Amino acid sequence: MKFLKTISVDEFKNIINSIEKLTKDEEFISLEEAFNRVTSKDITSPINVPHFRKSRMDGYAVIAEDTFGAEEDNLIELELIEIIQAGDVPQKELHKGQCSYVATGAAIPKNSDGIVMVEFSDKKDSKISISTAITPGTHIIEIGHDVKKGDIIVKKGRLIDLSTIGILASCGIKKVSVYKKPIVSLISTGNELVSHDIKELEIGKIYDINSIVLKKAIENTGVEVIFQGIIKDQYNDLKAAINTALEKSEIVILSGGTSKGEGDLGPKVLEEYNDIEILVHGVKIKPGKPIIFAKFKKKILFILPGYPTSALSCFYVFIDNFLRKISGFPLRNKSSRIMETGERIYSTIGRHEFKAVKIQKENGIDKIFPIKTGSEAISTMFYADGYIEIDELESIIERGGKREVFFF
Amino acid sequence: MKFLKTISVDEFKNIINSIEKLTKDEEFISLEEAFNRVTSKDITSPINVPHFRKSRMDGYAVIAEDTFGAEEDNLIELELIEIIQAGDVPQKELHKGQCSYVATGAAIPKNSDGIVMVEFSDKKDSKISISTAITPGTHIIEIGHDVKKGDIIVKKGRLIDLSTIGILASCGIKKVSVYKKPIVSLISTGNELVSHDIKELEIGKIYDINSIVLKKAIENTGVEVIFQGIIKDQYNDLKAAINTALEKSEIVILSGGTSKGEGDLGPKVLEEYNDIEILVHGVKIKPGKPIIFAKFKKKILFILPGYPTSALSCFYVFIDNFLRKISGFPLRNKSSRIMETGERIYSTIGRHEFKAVKIQKENGIDKIFPIKTGSEAISTMFYADGYIEIDELESIIERGGKREVFFF
Repeated sequence: MKFLKTISVDEFKNIINSIEKLTKDEEFISLEEAFNRVTSKDITSPINVPHFRKSRMDGYAVIAEDTFGAEEDNLIELELIEIIQAGDVPQKELHKGQCSYVATGAAIPKNSDGIVMVEFSDKKDSKISISTAITPGTHIIEIGHDVKKGDIIVKKGRLIDLSTIGILASCGIKKVSVYKKPIVSLISTGNELVSHDIKELEIGKIYDINSIVLKKAIENTGVEVIFQGIIKDQYNDLKAAINTALEKSEIVILSGGTSKGEGDLGPKVLEEYNDIEILVHGVKIKPGKPIIFAKFKKKILFILPGYPTSALSCFYVFIDNFLRKISGFPLRNKSSRIMETGERIYSTIGRHEFKAVKIQKENGIDKIFPIKTGSEAISTMFYADGYIEIDELESIIERGGKREVFFF
Repeated sequence: MKFLKTISVDEFKNIINSIEKLTKDEEFISLEEAFNRVTSKDITSPINVPHFRKSRMDGYAVIAEDTFGAEEDNLIELELIEIIQAGDVPQKELHKGQCSYVATGAAIPKNSDGIVMVEFSDKKDSKISISTAITPGTHIIEIGHDVKKGDIIVKKGRLIDLSTIGILASCGIKKVSVYKKPIVSLISTGNELVSHDIKELEIGKIYDINSIVLKKAIENTGVEVIFQGIIKDQYNDLKAAINTALEKSEIVILSGGTSKGEGDLGPKVLEEYNDIEILVHGVKIKPGKPIIFAKFKKKILFILPGYPTSALSCFYVFIDNFLRKISGFPLRNKSSRIMETGERIYSTIGRHEFKAVKIQKENGIDKIFPIKTGSEAISTMFYADGYIEIDELESIIERGGKREVFFF
């Protein structure tokens, strides 16, 4: 074996953080499909926004000079030559003494250099009395005010969120270059697992949960997931599945098969690859000590524990943000709060424990209570509100001890 | 008109909060499709989990009594009769003096009532020496330990998240009853709008952004969105579109067409329905004063301002959590932080302003700066990190004033 030791949580995080972005492949897709993808090129605007001079207000487009001196007791009369609603193309240009009505957002006529708000006017047939003077530029939105043609509007490497779609659409951009989603193969291993489509469970068998729960969790990181099926603990089957996965994908995540018992095939299969570096085998945590992290050429492999609760908590602690870094998705910020424990909590010395907890009120105050079932129980995950971290060297947190709860 | 006044932000929130959940229709769909849906019935487990007695450890299944008195210097020898891996069906029952090897998660043989961990054993051919005494029940996971057959595992009204899928799948549940997604019709109105598929923009025309940005924002609340297209400011067209929308959906959201200018059709069309209650017409906010909220029989209508920045901020302040309540999605918690302003910020007296701001460092400290473009500019939304609220009666926040920034 190339490298085998049980390491601490921080050592593991450091190793995993040292891995660079894997893939640089691009594709050119429609804006709507590009929601939640990451730009692979700077994007420049092909147009000015707006591409015509428009009014910010409902009012009268005028030649500003015509209004100089206008006051409430000194009205200036202009001749209305056109009514321009939003969307209309102005037909007439203004000359001295003339004005055109313009709605908010409407194009303004040639020669106009200001808008008098409708509130400062009075209309009699085609005569408009103006009661305020305006300076040139008043209430006009100039060409390119929002975006200038040729400007870089979205930089390479940006997640295309709602406001990004908005600015791209307003510049008339229909397709964008984005990074291809990294492909992750997911494999469930274990003779005891059956697909959750099966009606009757035999003795000894359980439903495979990771194929659905881990799959959804992985999909949330902006990658594409291929589920390769449930593989029996047989050397040839597992080797074939890992080979296929390495061919099809950049990242392979197996669950199950890392305990130190007799049915422990995953590491045996991995060891046989020539160019493999097994960077981590075992992390001093509970639940989920048996975790493997390996590099094979440019590919990455993880083996997670089989219990869904362990697999998912290992995923969130170590892999979630790693995949987000690879895909360009925003990293997940842990939300947390410091609270008191409502009862004594025990832990195992020598392992950094991620203890599932629930929050319950005691005399009106939120307190931390441990979930009593272990990682073998799916209900642990279901009833937990979050987890607390308990240091390798602690065995007891007394009732009333303060801890930071990280919420799921 | 049934009801027409401009109200405050809090009054609007109160009116909107008084609306009950609209729809109670259910559908019965597969577990995988049911991700992020809301259960419409209590769900009970059809099986015990686990449905067989299993081992929590790699070790030897024994009759506990056989181990009494065993110590490091008083080994007790048992006869190994079977090796049971996870997934195997035990073939032999134990008798006094016998044991079977069991892997973690494997079914344990009949008559066994405890597991001796492999660490406390030594194997010579079929003879196993035990160096510790165990009490009955040690390291055995009993039938139904995790979930009992017939127990309610998921209550009605719960969002089906990852851990819920996990527990349902582990109980072998393949299909679940969920509430149908409420259907929201989205209509963009305005003569100036063209679809963003159009190549060349004429003078006076702009791309319709709401059909893509508002649509994605609405979809995020757990409802289904039907985009009804861009409708011209023509009475008959708009009336027909609203009729279709009311037929097809529970909620109708229009954008555009609520300003007080001449092209103001939305309210005119709504007034004509007999049973309509126009609960709100105008909220004292900026941007987005012209907002309409109406009830028509059991249906709900909103008219939002046309500018994408205004439409989206109105949506987030008033409609987002309303739709989430209707669909059963978790409400959005605003994330916020109190910071100092880095320069003087102006506001309009008489309107509660949601001012778009960006956060920039000044001497290493995060400070609030106003976005200088207004709601007419799509770039306002793009460059803003969040917004601050400015009271109706404030016109200036001096540099250094403290404000709470709500992040998008």
